[in-house]
Amino acid sequence: MVEELTSVKNTRVKEWKKLQTHKGRKKTGHYLLEGWHLVNEALMAGRGVHELIGTKEELEAHPDIVARFEQVYSVTPAILAAVTETVTPQGIMAVADLPDLHRIPSTMKGAWLFLDRVQDPGNVGTMVRTADAAGFSGVVAGDGSADFFSPKVIRSMQGSQFHLDLYEGDLAKWFEDAKQAGLPVYGTQLNPEAKDFRTVQPKTGFVLVMGNEGRGMSSDLLSQTMANLYIPMRGQAESLNVAVSAGILMFELAKNLSN
Amino acid sequence: MVEELTSVKNTRVKEWKKLQTHKGRKKTGHYLLEGWHLVNEALMAGRGVHELIGTKEELEAHPDIVARFEQVYSVTPAILAAVTETVTPQGIMAVADLPDLHRIPSTMKGAWLFLDRVQDPGNVGTMVRTADAAGFSGVVAGDGSADFFSPKVIRSMQGSQFHLDLYEGDLAKWFEDAKQAGLPVYGTQLNPEAKDFRTVQPKTGFVLVMGNEGRGMSSDLLSQTMANLYIPMRGQAESLNVAVSAGILMFELAKNLSN
Repeated sequence: MVEELTSVKNTRVKEWKKLQTHKGRKKTGHYLLEGWHLVNEALMAGRGVHELIGTKEELEAHPDIVARFEQVYSVTPAILAAVTETVTPQGIMAVADLPDLHRIPSTMKGAWLFLDRVQDPGNVGTMVRTADAAGFSGVVAGDGSADFFSPKVIRSMQGSQFHLDLYEGDLAKWFEDAKQAGLPVYGTQLNPEAKDFRTVQPKTGFVLVMGNEGRGMSSDLLSQTMANLYIPMRGQAESLNVAVSAGILMFELAKNLSN
Repeated sequence: MVEELTSVKNTRVKEWKKLQTHKGRKKTGHYLLEGWHLVNEALMAGRGVHELIGTKEELEAHPDIVARFEQVYSVTPAILAAVTETVTPQGIMAVADLPDLHRIPSTMKGAWLFLDRVQDPGNVGTMVRTADAAGFSGVVAGDGSADFFSPKVIRSMQGSQFHLDLYEGDLAKWFEDAKQAGLPVYGTQLNPEAKDFRTVQPKTGFVLVMGNEGRGMSSDLLSQTMANLYIPMRGQAESLNVAVSAGILMFELAKNLSN
């Protein structure tokens, strides 16, 4: 059943708008997906997606996908613009279930990325997308990191939230879980005295920890790792962007992993 | 001599504001640096920096640097806010000389990064910063790429414009220059049929070409390379962010370079 909405003051519209905030997402357990690409990814992954929201034109152009939703809303471009922060909305959105970010995995296997207070949403999203590409099992955002389901992170993840496991929590506790599962934990440090990342060649699972954009990893966590890694730089730049560093490290460390 | 300015309508202020645009920079041959870090980098590199512009507090806090400028302007926070696009201006700016982006290098040596229509300013700036860290000699922005000296690119470069050479121009011509200098040109392609990047181990200089965010490299340029490289992905992500890909490729290809 397609319901038509024309007023930005409609109760539904106000509810969707609240999903742009952390509070609104936490209260409802939902978040917003934008664009057909992400809606398709959610359907393929079998993750809960409920309400489909789109302009008349977009809905008419994709009858097969529309048929898979019980609740469909045909809305005006003004409503889409009111709900989303995107400058040029794509004409289609869906309300999706937030995964349980605090579920404890029964076993930690494979490669994991931990984020210690990484604050820029674009960096967090790009790192999740890169972890997905590198075949990582999951990403854990430590306290003080950007929220995985904020609109900017969702845009940068490009659907990778459907391909690997995402968790939030106290990284000190996650360090314990990793050690119990037998996974070495590698920190990162902007310090030529640290260990050259090319000298580490894990053959089985491991954890890589990336730190805050300006301050790096907390000294407390640095002291609890098996080793702290460094990317030797031949040039004069003082540092690398954290998402670029993470990409270099993830692809190098994961290259010998046997699935 | 310190000149005091209090009106945002002052002619100087209007001239500085014009440096935020491509047209204004091209006409004057100048661009704006923001923050003490970049001002210091420019002075250390011996690149032309003229007018120093800052709030009274910032200028008084750094007398040694102020003494190195002939023209110093003490301005109000309102003037800084009017001149810069930055949300939280750092209280200090300087007018710097644009380098000659069309000078032809007498010889091409070492590792080079070419950008084929890379459009996002953050990506371009991050790639220049990463090229610097990886010890590259220069970066060439092909027609249709973001302007190296737009405010967003400058922020992302974090001073790397003072550490390597930047050029703009027709990449087809630069391909010829590279070939004449004996440098192999490696393109990049999101295609598992392309060459695994780990199988290429240049011992001397080379050129790496990165393409547009959505469309990749132009087919015309792809056909003129020595080989086109691919980063094998173990996961389900369809692609990597272009700046992350460039980081992985630059650090891997440059690792065996002598010097």
